[in-house]
Amino acid sequence: MSAFESEVRVRFGDVDAAGIAYFPRIHGYLHEVFEELWERHVGVRYAELIAGRRIGFPLVHSSVDFRSPLRFGDRAIVRVTCTKLGRSSLTLRYRFAVDSRLCVDARQTTATVRLDTLEPLPMPDEFRPRFAAIFEEPSP
Amino acid sequence: MSAFESEVRVRFGDVDAAGIAYFPRIHGYLHEVFEELWERHVGVRYAELIAGRRIGFPLVHSSVDFRSPLRFGDRAIVRVTCTKLGRSSLTLRYRFAVDSRLCVDARQTTATVRLDTLEPLPMPDEFRPRFAAIFEEPSP
Amino acid sequence: MSAFESEVRVRFGDVDAAGIAYFPRIHGYLHEVFEELWERHVGVRYAELIAGRRIGFPLVHSSVDFRSPLRFGDRAIVRVTCTKLGRSSLTLRYRFAVDSRLCVDARQTTATVRLDTLEPLPMPDEFRPRFAAIFEEPSP
Amino acid sequence: MSAFESEVRVRFGDVDAAGIAYFPRIHGYLHEVFEELWERHVGVRYAELIAGRRIGFPLVHSSVDFRSPLRFGDRAIVRVTCTKLGRSSLTLRYRFAVDSRLCVDARQTTATVRLDTLEPLPMPDEFRPRFAAIFEEPSP
Repeated sequence: MSAFESEVRVRFGDVDAAGIAYFPRIHGYLHEVFEELWERHVGVRYAELIAGRRIGFPLVHSSVDFRSPLRFGDRAIVRVTCTKLGRSSLTLRYRFAVDSRLCVDARQTTATVRLDTLEPLPMPDEFRPRFAAIFEEPSP
Repeated sequence: MSAFESEVRVRFGDVDAAGIAYFPRIHGYLHEVFEELWERHVGVRYAELIAGRRIGFPLVHSSVDFRSPLRFGDRAIVRVTCTKLGRSSLTLRYRFAVDSRLCVDARQTTATVRLDTLEPLPMPDEFRPRFAAIFEEPSP
Repeated sequence: MSAFESEVRVRFGDVDAAGIAYFPRIHGYLHEVFEELWERHVGVRYAELIAGRRIGFPLVHSSVDFRSPLRFGDRAIVRVTCTKLGRSSLTLRYRFAVDSRLCVDARQTTATVRLDTLEPLPMPDEFRPRFAAIFEEPSP
Repeated sequence: MSAFESEVRVRFGDVDAAGIAYFPRIHGYLHEVFEELWERHVGVRYAELIAGRRIGFPLVHSSVDFRSPLRFGDRAIVRVTCTKLGRSSLTLRYRFAVDSRLCVDARQTTATVRLDTLEPLPMPDEFRPRFAAIFEEPSP
């Protein structure tokens, strides 16, 4: 199975008072990896989409399993696959692993919208093959 | 149905480049409301649990529907109910509404652990009635 | 000396891997107190200034002494005074105290700008008396 | 003049409701660059210092000039020099430039402490030459 990979580093300020990565920060990593995916895998800078073309991808649904804690200093490899590509909606799955330990397994569904009105827009055809290239059959 | 209520304000720095509340910040609100719930509804300061008793509540699963965008200046009322209270696990549901508009509908399942080892711990008996008091039958 | 006062709570996610409040979060508190000052002391919601009137207050200079660490669970009282009010520029001083312990002593200078162009604008006359009311002679 | 250089990317979630990088996030960049400096210039991972050796560098004083706004999509080159290396204290200067535009000019003074007690500690001798290597005469 093909996937996009990106590294995430758990920074000094990313932990909470229990000493593990604070989950809102893990959601921040998810968006940072999403930005990397657009630039390095799809081939367009996310800022160009947002500020230039005024296309956005608001999150509609998020489902995350936290399997094992991330700690300060951890460097996770995040593998991203696409489990659904609808007309406008896109579901990506992100798996964070530190060495062979699975830490986070996240599914994020976004809509595609015209930013100025938040109206739905079809995912542009030019981007579809790049998501198809990392397609993974959704698990039941 | 009884619920705990708390207010969340969308601050100047909580938005993203698309002009709506950045979803990792919404996850931050969820934890802030969780801290308020412990203090104002259960009756113990969260810092006392963490730093004093060394009991923690790591997030195990998160499932969030983003129904309508939150914008800078919005003041959402967050209603919290408990949809499951197991031996160690706790599922809370958080509904954010701005006026009568439902914006975020989140379910968060935490474990109860001894912080020094991250081993599971039963939810202490003294706290159970407070979660029972805001119990809501889980929707299918 | 008259001052505006607001409370800041050090949240679970506000600390770093050394166990004390992460300084970027302290800068976040400064802005949250600034927003409270506009609403509760000056009498206009910050969102109304930004989104309604399109007036902004970008930070030009920041100078902060970190005197004593803030820890999870601390509740600091922040006293805000105005040490300079120019035509367009405003310098506010923020002192964070936990009980009688001074933790943070910050000076922040903002410009007043038209948001759509970032051009300087005089501080509107209607707001000036509110800053005069918390004036403090700047220390050398 | 020799300096350490690192890149900072202004992310989708780093802006505020005025559309420019939110200053607490710029303070976050400062710490991220500090972590990079330790790893890539001094030669020790910051997590090893904190979690392994239990040496920390709490911020004592911060002074920042915000010269020109950073916007979503900007990639700033941050040049770091050392303007003072005392027995325990360290002052670093960080200049953020986008193309040739100076955006942020920051000076940060840290103490060196034993993390378990927060007592001052001399900067270890093994690290001193690395800071000397990027020394810059402080401007008046």
